[in-house]
Amino acid sequence: MDSDSIPNSTVEFADIEQPDEQARSAAIELHGKLIKPAGSLGRLEELGIWIAACQGQSPPRPFTRPRVVVFAGDHGIAAKGVSAYPPEVTAQLVGSLLTGGAAINVLAASAGASVRVVDMAVDTDAPATPSIGEFKVRRGSGSIDTEDALTDEEVREAILAGVKIADAEVDGGADLLIAGDIGIGNSTPASVLVAALTGSEPVAVVGRGSGIDDQTWMRKATAVRDALRRARTVLADPVALLRTAGGADIAAMAGFLAQAAVRHTPVVLDGLVAGAAALVAEELAPGARQWWVAGQRGGEPAHALLLDHLDLEPILDLDVRLGEGTGAVAALPLLFMAARVLAEMATHDQAGISGPITPAPED
Amino acid sequence: MDSDSIPNSTVEFADIEQPDEQARSAAIELHGKLIKPAGSLGRLEELGIWIAACQGQSPPRPFTRPRVVVFAGDHGIAAKGVSAYPPEVTAQLVGSLLTGGAAINVLAASAGASVRVVDMAVDTDAPATPSIGEFKVRRGSGSIDTEDALTDEEVREAILAGVKIADAEVDGGADLLIAGDIGIGNSTPASVLVAALTGSEPVAVVGRGSGIDDQTWMRKATAVRDALRRARTVLADPVALLRTAGGADIAAMAGFLAQAAVRHTPVVLDGLVAGAAALVAEELAPGARQWWVAGQRGGEPAHALLLDHLDLEPILDLDVRLGEGTGAVAALPLLFMAARVLAEMATHDQAGISGPITPAPED
Repeated sequence: MDSDSIPNSTVEFADIEQPDEQARSAAIELHGKLIKPAGSLGRLEELGIWIAACQGQSPPRPFTRPRVVVFAGDHGIAAKGVSAYPPEVTAQLVGSLLTGGAAINVLAASAGASVRVVDMAVDTDAPATPSIGEFKVRRGSGSIDTEDALTDEEVREAILAGVKIADAEVDGGADLLIAGDIGIGNSTPASVLVAALTGSEPVAVVGRGSGIDDQTWMRKATAVRDALRRARTVLADPVALLRTAGGADIAAMAGFLAQAAVRHTPVVLDGLVAGAAALVAEELAPGARQWWVAGQRGGEPAHALLLDHLDLEPILDLDVRLGEGTGAVAALPLLFMAARVLAEMATHDQAGISGPITPAPED
Repeated sequence: MDSDSIPNSTVEFADIEQPDEQARSAAIELHGKLIKPAGSLGRLEELGIWIAACQGQSPPRPFTRPRVVVFAGDHGIAAKGVSAYPPEVTAQLVGSLLTGGAAINVLAASAGASVRVVDMAVDTDAPATPSIGEFKVRRGSGSIDTEDALTDEEVREAILAGVKIADAEVDGGADLLIAGDIGIGNSTPASVLVAALTGSEPVAVVGRGSGIDDQTWMRKATAVRDALRRARTVLADPVALLRTAGGADIAAMAGFLAQAAVRHTPVVLDGLVAGAAALVAEELAPGARQWWVAGQRGGEPAHALLLDHLDLEPILDLDVRLGEGTGAVAALPLLFMAARVLAEMATHDQAGISGPITPAPED
C-alpha cells in the first residue's frame, strides 16, 4: 500500500503480509549445510533466517542502506516536572544531531548507517532547518494528564507523516529501518501507552527515564496515572489512543513502523519510546511485528512489558537507555554479520568437510 | 617484556602492569560531559572507559588493526569419541579458514578485523602452508585421560610460540587481539582445565560441545574425570597443568593472552576454549585479566564457571558456541562504538546544551 492510498481523513493500513516462508525454510536448510555444528551460531542464525524471510530470498542480500529516522517532539507534560532535563533540551539536541555530535550520529557512523531527523512537534518558533520541518504538526503536544496530546486532525497528520517518511525511505533504497526518538518528557506518554495496551498499573511502568530522582519519579507516576485514566476510555481505538496520550512524534513513529511492515522492510526497534510506538503500530496494523526485531533490552520497566507483549526477544542487553535509536544501531552490526554468514560461508560440500559422526561411535 | 627475555627453558612472565588509572579517570569524567544523561549508554560507557585505560589515553584512539589469531590443534582424546565430529575435520576447517569460507572469516570481514591461523598441533603430515606451520609442535596432543598432552619441552615451546605471536602482532600494529580455536575435541581439555582451576566436579563442566548426544556426553564426562584426576596433581603449576591436561593449541593461546597483557594490548575473549586458556594465562601472569573483556556468554557450563572465576561480565549473550573466535568478533563493533563515542560525541559545553535540572523543580 502506498501512502497515496490512505485517505487523509482516516488512517487505515492494508493487511500486513508475513515474511516469506519459502525463503525462511531455504535459509534454515542452508544453515544446516554450512561448515559449523548445527545451531552453533545461536541467535546469529535466527537473525539470518529472519532477514532472509523479510527479503524473500536465501541467502539474503547484504544490507546496503540501513537508515535511522529520528522523530523529535516536545511534550506538554514536561512542564509538570517529569524529566531530569528542561524542555529546551529537545531543540538543542536536534541541533546537535544536525551537526553530527549526538550519540546516534557517532554510533550510526560506526555501524555504517545514515541518519535523518524529523521535527514533528519541537517547541520552537521554526524548525531548525526547513527540510526537517516538512511534517511538523505543532509546537509540543498537549499535557496528557489533563488534555489530549493532539487534535483529531493532528494525530492523522502525524501518523500519515510517518507513513510518507517510511515510503520515501524505502523508495530511496533503505533496506533496514530504525526509528529513533528525541524529546524531553517522551518516556511519560510512552509509559502511558504501554500501561494502557498491556493492562498494567502506573507503578509497573514508571521508570527513571533520563535519570530522575525520587521526587521527580513521584510526579511522573502521578502524571502517568492521570493520563492513563483518560487513555483507558479510548483503548480500543489506536488512533484515538495516540491522540489522547501519545504525541506527534510517537504517532509518526507508529505510522512509520506500521508502514515499514506494509513495505516489507525489516526494522530494528530501540528502547521504550520506539517500542511504545511499535505497540500502537501493531494495533494499527496487526502482524507488523513480524517485520521487527528488538535491538536491545533497555532498563525501563515499561520496555520489558512491551517486548513481552509483542513477543520480541532483544538482541542486546547493555543497559542502553539513551533513545535516539542508539540501542537499535548498536545491534546493527550483528544483523549485518547474520546476513553475511548465510551469503558467504562455505557449505560442507563446497569445502569437502566431513559432517557429524552418525551414528555416534561406540567405545 | 619481549619474548627474547624469556629463557627457552622456563616460562616466566613479567609482572603485569594494570591499565592506566589516569586515562580511566579522564574517560569517566569525559563521559559525564557528553550530551546524554549520565550512564545512559550503559555498558558502552564502561567499555569505552576500559579501552581508554588500556590505551593510556582519553579519549581513546579508534582501533586500526583488530586481529584474530586462530590456534589449531588436534587432541588425542578425540579418538575416544568425545566429539560429534571426526578428528580429520580439524585439518579440513584449517583449509577452509585459509580459503575464507569459515565462520570466523565472514564475521571478521564484517567487523573489519583480519585473521591469521596458526597450526600448533594439527594431526597432518605437514602444515597446510609452511607459514602457518612455523610454530607447529607436534601432530595432535596426547590423550589426556591416560597420558600427558605434551612433553616438558613441547609445552614450553607452545607457550613461547603464543608469546612470540603476540609480540609479532603487536609489533605489526595490532591494537586489539582475539584468540580463536579450531580443534575437534578441544572442549574436553578446556573443560578439564576449568574444572581443575575452579575446583569443580566433572559433571559441572561437561557440556554439549559441538552438539553431542547422551552417549557421547557420557564418554566425554569419563574422559574429563580421568584427566582431571591427573591434572589435580599439578594444580599449583600452570605450565605443568597445560602439559598434563591442555594441548599445544591451548598452551599457545595461554602464552598469547598473557603476553597481550604484558604488551598492554586489549583482548576480547571468545568461548570455552579461549576462556580456559585465559584461566591458565591468569595463573601464568596474575593480573592479565584486567586487559581482557569477555565477548560473550557461550552455552557451555564450564564457560560460565571460568567467566565467574575471572570476574568477567560478557558483552553478548547470543548462544554462540562455535569457537574460532566468532563470539569475540561479534562483540567487536560494540568496542569500536564505545571508543568512538568518547572520541566523537559533543560535550554539553561544545553543543551549548543545558544540563540536568538541579535541584529537581518542585510542583
